[in-house]
Amino acid sequence: MPVGDGASGQQGVALFQTTILVRFGDLDAAGIAYYPRLVNFLHVAFEDFFAGHVGKTYPQIFREGLGFPSVKIEIEFLSPVHYGDHVNVSLAVEKVGRSSVHMRYEASVLGKPVFKARQVAVVVDMKTFKSVRLPNWLRERFLAASA
Amino acid sequence: MPVGDGASGQQGVALFQTTILVRFGDLDAAGIAYYPRLVNFLHVAFEDFFAGHVGKTYPQIFREGLGFPSVKIEIEFLSPVHYGDHVNVSLAVEKVGRSSVHMRYEASVLGKPVFKARQVAVVVDMKTFKSVRLPNWLRERFLAASA
Amino acid sequence: MPVGDGASGQQGVALFQTTILVRFGDLDAAGIAYYPRLVNFLHVAFEDFFAGHVGKTYPQIFREGLGFPSVKIEIEFLSPVHYGDHVNVSLAVEKVGRSSVHMRYEASVLGKPVFKARQVAVVVDMKTFKSVRLPNWLRERFLAASA
Amino acid sequence: MPVGDGASGQQGVALFQTTILVRFGDLDAAGIAYYPRLVNFLHVAFEDFFAGHVGKTYPQIFREGLGFPSVKIEIEFLSPVHYGDHVNVSLAVEKVGRSSVHMRYEASVLGKPVFKARQVAVVVDMKTFKSVRLPNWLRERFLAASA
Repeated sequence: MPVGDGASGQQGVALFQTTILVRFGDLDAAGIAYYPRLVNFLHVAFEDFFAGHVGKTYPQIFREGLGFPSVKIEIEFLSPVHYGDHVNVSLAVEKVGRSSVHMRYEASVLGKPVFKARQVAVVVDMKTFKSVRLPNWLRERFLAASA
Repeated sequence: MPVGDGASGQQGVALFQTTILVRFGDLDAAGIAYYPRLVNFLHVAFEDFFAGHVGKTYPQIFREGLGFPSVKIEIEFLSPVHYGDHVNVSLAVEKVGRSSVHMRYEASVLGKPVFKARQVAVVVDMKTFKSVRLPNWLRERFLAASA
Repeated sequence: MPVGDGASGQQGVALFQTTILVRFGDLDAAGIAYYPRLVNFLHVAFEDFFAGHVGKTYPQIFREGLGFPSVKIEIEFLSPVHYGDHVNVSLAVEKVGRSSVHMRYEASVLGKPVFKARQVAVVVDMKTFKSVRLPNWLRERFLAASA
Repeated sequence: MPVGDGASGQQGVALFQTTILVRFGDLDAAGIAYYPRLVNFLHVAFEDFFAGHVGKTYPQIFREGLGFPSVKIEIEFLSPVHYGDHVNVSLAVEKVGRSSVHMRYEASVLGKPVFKARQVAVVVDMKTFKSVRLPNWLRERFLAASA
């Protein structure tokens, strides 16, 4: 499913891309994807980014005790997302801090933009929920998706 | 919210009752409650049962290390549940084992049955996920909802 | 449940307030509320705002053919939200356009801020999904929550 | 994703099979898949069954006005489902009525059974929500998955 194509996107930014199929359970009573479910798509894309780009799955990293709770999300809904849509989500790393990462997401269906988002996540030890330094090998993988 | 009325229901069974408001996020594209969300209502009612009948909230019990994972659920959907419905859910304990509980749920909207379910849950230590004996004080509270 | 207290909040802004109980189904594997579920809390608060302040429930308005899809959300997660927390959410209307509304949410648990958000929603005819003018009576109710 | 292998399963029943990846958003506070999310997996498998076996996607059929609301589900949770598990779900049609279908699901992770379920769905016109006769071409596709 994850397609870590490494292709250069707009602005010279290397983008990780994945595709998420809109399921019946993602829909609301208006017959379009319910926006909290699209926020969940950000996490799905983040998980695919680990599998397809980082090289270690998020479940593995989570079991090893590292977590990336969100501290900020900005999301713009540009066009309704429908049942059965294959949503192409690109993820670019905008900034890598000592213990935080800034991501930008752009989602489209058949080339038409449907939502875009920015997210700031912090790196925490899942045992203590305290902020920890992003391990070097991970920093390198994040940076490799940022330029 | 929880209404532990202790009133006798049909068949002489004392029922715990609670009311759950159907939210936009519970709906599917057909404009009715999505059935996995109604299965979630069973857990909501179970939580209200602790707050309203057992006398200790489920969050407290969970934090103390006890969990009640489901091992079996049978659910019949009798009539569609709509947006804004106040779903009255009654919970009766059918059987209390050494480390399991059997519950029966009956849900209605304005007196009209909408779904009914039976559930078997086991009692586990959340640290080890191993089956443990239901503590006596809890057994008494469950039994008090069973006849 | 909804508490439309009409009390003046900080900065002289009249706030609508409601309380949302964190359910087991809102939690993630870290034992805290999963952030897309907190985004869902915005909608829950918006629904309570209709019931408690607008004077007509959202389900009624939705059935009459009016919808308020989100076009933009900014949310900051300030502190983890835990199982059993009673999250106090205040909603203030920041701006009322011809066919859009801007809302600000502030959420706290026992006085401690847990998240805050801004949301822009547009007013649409649910049949055509086209933007429509906010009805006057609704505009007045929104404005009454904005100063 | 869907793997309609047509291979004979146990008891000579031809099974449709698909694989569902357990996402972070499927987990509960115990770190395992929350059971209403596993009930949602039944619908996901049902959707994949249309794409992979029926030959017309469920979104298409839904847009054409046909729906399959559940009237009964029995589900047994045999073993916890964990983050990152690839859940293999097989779907066999047990019975095809005039306007109903009976399905059996068996789910496993790396060969270990994790849940099994039976489901009865009725065929309805999504406009009227009235029961309608299952179209012949669909009946044939369902029957082809039943023996």
